[in-house]
Amino acid sequence: MQKPSIPKGTRDFSPSEIRRRNFIFNIIKSKFQKFGFSPIETPSIENLSTLTGKYGSEGDQLLFKILKRGAKFTKALENYSKEKTSDNSFSSEALRYDLTVPFARYIVQHQNDISFPFKRYQIQPVWRADRPQRGRYREFYQCDADIVGTSSLNCEIELICLISEVLNELNLSDHTIMINNRKILSALIDHCNSSMYFSKITVIIDKLDKIGVDKVIQELQESIPIKECSLLFKELFNVNYSDTNIFNWLENKLENNDEGQKGLKELNHIVNLSKELGIDNLEFNISLARGLDYYTGSIFEVVLNNSSMGSIVGGGRYDNLTEVFGQKDLSGVGISFGAERIYDIMNDFNLFPNDLDSPPKYMIVDQSDSAINGLKLLNYLRSKNIDSILYPDNIKLKKQIKYAHLNKIPFVLFINKDFELDMSIELKNMDTGDQNECDISTLN
Amino acid sequence: MQKPSIPKGTRDFSPSEIRRRNFIFNIIKSKFQKFGFSPIETPSIENLSTLTGKYGSEGDQLLFKILKRGAKFTKALENYSKEKTSDNSFSSEALRYDLTVPFARYIVQHQNDISFPFKRYQIQPVWRADRPQRGRYREFYQCDADIVGTSSLNCEIELICLISEVLNELNLSDHTIMINNRKILSALIDHCNSSMYFSKITVIIDKLDKIGVDKVIQELQESIPIKECSLLFKELFNVNYSDTNIFNWLENKLENNDEGQKGLKELNHIVNLSKELGIDNLEFNISLARGLDYYTGSIFEVVLNNSSMGSIVGGGRYDNLTEVFGQKDLSGVGISFGAERIYDIMNDFNLFPNDLDSPPKYMIVDQSDSAINGLKLLNYLRSKNIDSILYPDNIKLKKQIKYAHLNKIPFVLFINKDFELDMSIELKNMDTGDQNECDISTLN
Repeated sequence: MQKPSIPKGTRDFSPSEIRRRNFIFNIIKSKFQKFGFSPIETPSIENLSTLTGKYGSEGDQLLFKILKRGAKFTKALENYSKEKTSDNSFSSEALRYDLTVPFARYIVQHQNDISFPFKRYQIQPVWRADRPQRGRYREFYQCDADIVGTSSLNCEIELICLISEVLNELNLSDHTIMINNRKILSALIDHCNSSMYFSKITVIIDKLDKIGVDKVIQELQESIPIKECSLLFKELFNVNYSDTNIFNWLENKLENNDEGQKGLKELNHIVNLSKELGIDNLEFNISLARGLDYYTGSIFEVVLNNSSMGSIVGGGRYDNLTEVFGQKDLSGVGISFGAERIYDIMNDFNLFPNDLDSPPKYMIVDQSDSAINGLKLLNYLRSKNIDSILYPDNIKLKKQIKYAHLNKIPFVLFINKDFELDMSIELKNMDTGDQNECDISTLN
Repeated sequence: MQKPSIPKGTRDFSPSEIRRRNFIFNIIKSKFQKFGFSPIETPSIENLSTLTGKYGSEGDQLLFKILKRGAKFTKALENYSKEKTSDNSFSSEALRYDLTVPFARYIVQHQNDISFPFKRYQIQPVWRADRPQRGRYREFYQCDADIVGTSSLNCEIELICLISEVLNELNLSDHTIMINNRKILSALIDHCNSSMYFSKITVIIDKLDKIGVDKVIQELQESIPIKECSLLFKELFNVNYSDTNIFNWLENKLENNDEGQKGLKELNHIVNLSKELGIDNLEFNISLARGLDYYTGSIFEVVLNNSSMGSIVGGGRYDNLTEVFGQKDLSGVGISFGAERIYDIMNDFNLFPNDLDSPPKYMIVDQSDSAINGLKLLNYLRSKNIDSILYPDNIKLKKQIKYAHLNKIPFVLFINKDFELDMSIELKNMDTGDQNECDISTLN
């Protein structure tokens, strides 16, 4: 006998959990559609070569790889006995790690069927063999909206409006949308001659909100062997904090850096127009860096103001993501809703409507040998589109009533003994306990 | 540069394909709910031990196994160099093969939170490393409804009604629901002393519809070393074909076999009551056997009357499926809609509604440097819940109009130069080509 269990970091979802999850997915989906995004889906399994090298070396480690089968597996084993091999010879396919890279693969593969700019949304699970913890699972849904085939900043602005609409509809209006631009970060890092450490530096400064200025500077001093680096960021973080002060400092510091100037201009444009459109919770955050390698312009993250849950939306612009699949000059920008974290938060704060579980209205009890009359009544009710069930077994009445009670079914219908003759039934109101004869034609 | 591709047997779905697939899923889902089934979801990845040994040895071969990572992988390799190992040492998890076994695992694991009889539905993808062919994919959706915790035949009858409702709603009313009972098959095979060949015999007689009586008898003669076996089935298949004749022959042949009598009684009850409820396309088919090992009672398959596509719904009763996970005496019965085949057929026969692709109503064209006015108009339209888009780039008008045309957007709105002063816009009807000044307040 096996004790039933599921793999670490995965979850079963009960009916009421599914209904709550669908509440979130449906809101996100309807807003995506309202904003002109079209749905696509891609396979759970991608060729390994599609995925590797896109998420940094740490990401590659977290891929769920599919074991080769049959002769291919045997061959991998044989090769191993000849020479040391990596685990890649045992696998040529893996579960997708996010929805962005499969989407980039999709648009290159189907470019002739797509009219650009292409606005797509995709709501599907992804898999990461990360260490599970609260809010982090090994199988989880992403809800992505991307616009590809244009570098217009109007797309960033639209995405900001979209984030706002979705979160307000979910009763999560107390949030902050943080924005930064990789071009500014890149120019800053270039300014202190540390470009070769770009990834390392962004990972460190991304921790600012968690560990504070002093520890970030200390880490930069310890990890980056170029002194100007920690000095520059120390100077930056000591600027008296306000969007305007930081912005002016950057304008000044990067005045001869084209990329930096471009980043600042982009950022400025997006922030100003968004404000004009009524978005009042957009904040420039120079320490926002994002973990993924493919971002090249605007980057976003959204946090709830009174929660330690971390970001619930993330995204950014990528200029070169399709290049590796053979299509240059196709800029895109997208956001991804962290539906799992949103779900956990909404559960914690009791933000789901109470009426998501809608049980059948009637449960029929037929205590005859053949329940043909119960089945007929059931058919009749369903033909009227009234959700109903028939208790399937002819067991003790008490047990049947208990079942109706547990399942929150408001009314029970009893098939009377003389049903064949006079169609007589009785209706029990589970709330009041009242039970009376009832005419079938009055049921609705 | 990589040439983008996806693994054999998997598919990308474009927006219009997704909308057509969702048309099917939504109908199935709404009928499941109407019939009192509640949704659950289980992880894509299950422990290997949950899955192996449930689908016959052929099924085990088709599992997509997850390669172990890090130290566990290294250990598996080390063990290999010492002694020959199966591929199981390289994997302890696999993608689910169907939804029934994970469901059995689910009900045992969560038995204390479930009130039985439990009616659940589940619509999720499953994975099988089968040889891909038309209508058969390596990743495909199953749409399952099961009732567990009762052996009442009313469940079979309800499932038959459910099948009927779903297929009628999908415009697939010209179908036949075939029914048989494993108890009858088991009794027959027992009658000719061939019980040890049960699986083999069912696989052979399952082919009757495809290869005909003579070839089935020939295969039985060649594969089953017990002469009575082929003789018995030859006699059966030579009965002048009608439900009644076959039924009488079986009644007679199995009169001293308790299991056979029970199977015949069950079958009879289901067929008669279903007919009384208006189901007139239910047919007893003694050669229907079903491939899966876990069925023990009623089995179903549904075929379209004028199609060679094979079965589009399958299912049956299983009495011992939860036993391996530690819970005895929990009988269940379920059906699974083959959504992929249904999708292929509906495409072939053009059975989808024409209006599934609903493009945005308006596309806004703003040919100024900053599209703030276009963005404002867009926000206004969306606040009225009118699906609209803004062409993001300030490019040639002709290209923008072409985009609206390609995307079947019925109206284009132009922001006039004097918009700031007088809010003036023009409306172009893409159908007629008419273009006129228009008052914003009239847009709906």
